[in-house]
Amino acid sequence: MKIKVLGTGLTKFGELWDKSLFDLAQEASLEAIKDSGLSPNQIDAVFVGNMIYGKVSNQDHLGPTIASQLNIKGAALRIEGACASGGLAVHLAIQSILAQTYKNVLVVGVEKMTDISVSQVTSALMGAGSEEERRAGLTFPALYALMAKAHMQKYGTTKKQMAQVAVKNHFHGSLNNKAQFPYEVSLEKALNSPCICDPLNLFDASPITDGAAAVVLNADTSKRGVFITGSAVATDTVDLSSRESLTEIKATREACQKALKQTGCQIKDVNVCEVHDCFTIAEILAMEDLGFCKKGEGAEFIEKGTTKLGGKIPVNTSGGLKACGHPVGATGVKQIVELTWQLRGSAGSRQVKDAKVGLAQNVGGTGATVVVHVLQN
Amino acid sequence: MKIKVLGTGLTKFGELWDKSLFDLAQEASLEAIKDSGLSPNQIDAVFVGNMIYGKVSNQDHLGPTIASQLNIKGAALRIEGACASGGLAVHLAIQSILAQTYKNVLVVGVEKMTDISVSQVTSALMGAGSEEERRAGLTFPALYALMAKAHMQKYGTTKKQMAQVAVKNHFHGSLNNKAQFPYEVSLEKALNSPCICDPLNLFDASPITDGAAAVVLNADTSKRGVFITGSAVATDTVDLSSRESLTEIKATREACQKALKQTGCQIKDVNVCEVHDCFTIAEILAMEDLGFCKKGEGAEFIEKGTTKLGGKIPVNTSGGLKACGHPVGATGVKQIVELTWQLRGSAGSRQVKDAKVGLAQNVGGTGATVVVHVLQN
Repeated sequence: MKIKVLGTGLTKFGELWDKSLFDLAQEASLEAIKDSGLSPNQIDAVFVGNMIYGKVSNQDHLGPTIASQLNIKGAALRIEGACASGGLAVHLAIQSILAQTYKNVLVVGVEKMTDISVSQVTSALMGAGSEEERRAGLTFPALYALMAKAHMQKYGTTKKQMAQVAVKNHFHGSLNNKAQFPYEVSLEKALNSPCICDPLNLFDASPITDGAAAVVLNADTSKRGVFITGSAVATDTVDLSSRESLTEIKATREACQKALKQTGCQIKDVNVCEVHDCFTIAEILAMEDLGFCKKGEGAEFIEKGTTKLGGKIPVNTSGGLKACGHPVGATGVKQIVELTWQLRGSAGSRQVKDAKVGLAQNVGGTGATVVVHVLQN
Repeated sequence: MKIKVLGTGLTKFGELWDKSLFDLAQEASLEAIKDSGLSPNQIDAVFVGNMIYGKVSNQDHLGPTIASQLNIKGAALRIEGACASGGLAVHLAIQSILAQTYKNVLVVGVEKMTDISVSQVTSALMGAGSEEERRAGLTFPALYALMAKAHMQKYGTTKKQMAQVAVKNHFHGSLNNKAQFPYEVSLEKALNSPCICDPLNLFDASPITDGAAAVVLNADTSKRGVFITGSAVATDTVDLSSRESLTEIKATREACQKALKQTGCQIKDVNVCEVHDCFTIAEILAMEDLGFCKKGEGAEFIEKGTTKLGGKIPVNTSGGLKACGHPVGATGVKQIVELTWQLRGSAGSRQVKDAKVGLAQNVGGTGATVVVHVLQN
């Protein structure tokens, strides 16, 4: 499999009061189309990744709405798989290119989350969980807090180690002018931030964000560039209580193994990685479940600086969901944009030296959906 | 292109107060899997077509929810394109099979619409229209009424001719025990039914329906069976006011031409057809835009009995959206189920003799999305 990332586009992430969902989708899409060197009428299909807009605005049918604003005439549709909607949109766009049905495909992930109250957003996001979880009064901070507690009990992971994930990702975010929080935070500040759901503090959680990310993909393999060489999805129960373990996201392991198998690479070949750090514990789990370190050693692996810029395998150079922001439908596409920039060597002050292989992990819910992409230059 | 319809499943359509969305999805899916001769662990991916469930229940992430209830471990995701969500799910499932990423794919279209009030459903469905249309107070009956008025003015189409679409589809529905309204209606009854939005009467409109339809697809071309040989999507503006014409759905013409081109068939080769008669005028437009007759002659074409069982090209033998019912996310998949039964020769009392080529047209909104599939045996 060899799908070229022909163009990338990314809006500023943040509280973008003056921009609508459609403004954001258009901005990222036009940038990606321009970067691809194509014109809108050469785009054969538009795959939109979005989770909550239908619920919060009553506007569905985003595919043709976005396509017609861009003056694109081809097929247009929306993919939803909770916070993995963006990664799934990339995965399905790839299928349609491999099938030779569409040649040039625009994937745009977009979310507008700040036009409603925080409690409304929290409720809307809980659509990614199960009915039983909602009835029990659980929210996503609560679900990840359960996973964090279990990891702390079983492996001795500490609040300080979790806070270090936030410190690292804010350092990376301070080098990214598209980030929602482009500044560093101290370990003390993170550790002393208000508790939102024990053991998670405010700085253990990703924010509520507006933003869009877009890529133009095609099957052009003739020239140099950045290529997606692996794309895999795995699923698990939506209910956390139905899982075998609270301390691993099994779908991460399965999707990663499938994606790597497509490429011939091993996890040790990966030079740069974007993972789904919706909460700091999620990045610790990702390190273990992707196979960068053994189960139970994720916190220590990060604490040692291995995943910081300059370390062996920089993780979340964009700032991750924590510092760059988490517009849920956009996140999986933003990961591909960041890795493309790293593999092109155009990541500026946060460039990973000689990056050759990138890996993106996008999670829906507490791991009911995981999408893994591998990129190579 | 040759994708085999290995199995089909269909629930009763209607007001199914005692069944949840997940009950319905499971029932149709298990029937399709059983019919395919496979076991759930041989299914590699689940594509769910659904429009409104996230809005009306706050449950998103339907892919893994449905997959895990079926004990299917593969990829699972949801596709949304308003009332074309089911057809789009079939289209994308086909891409993933052609790409050789997934071998056996379950597509399940499902909608649960009767657990909320009619005004809530009408509002939820208006998510398929544009923000401007909602602000103007337009609903889907109103939008299709505008199209009907324009067609009446331009081509002399009458209310009686529109009512005849309902009479025909109810006759077909009377032969289908899965139909929501499995009984005939007289022309007088249809014409004298209450006006819901001039010139459309109650019997010009499809109902609000619960139901699910499922198919198992794979690339097996070695044996006899029913195959999908054409699959195409076309899009247009969501806003009716931005269209060039109110009296045609251009995306129908484009999707039909693309799908037929994939098969080598012409429209005159089609023996049986399911079209998206959300309103009676929509079936008249479909006859013209698919090319069964000239623009402006659709009403007369239907009036002559050409599209009734026993006629030259029976249309909506299932009863269509009008009599079989319209659970929006399920409709596009149900069309494939009905055509598969016709091409297998298992359609019972509504069997079209010697059916060889079937065509399905699934519409989102007022034609912003159109999906056309061609099936052959």
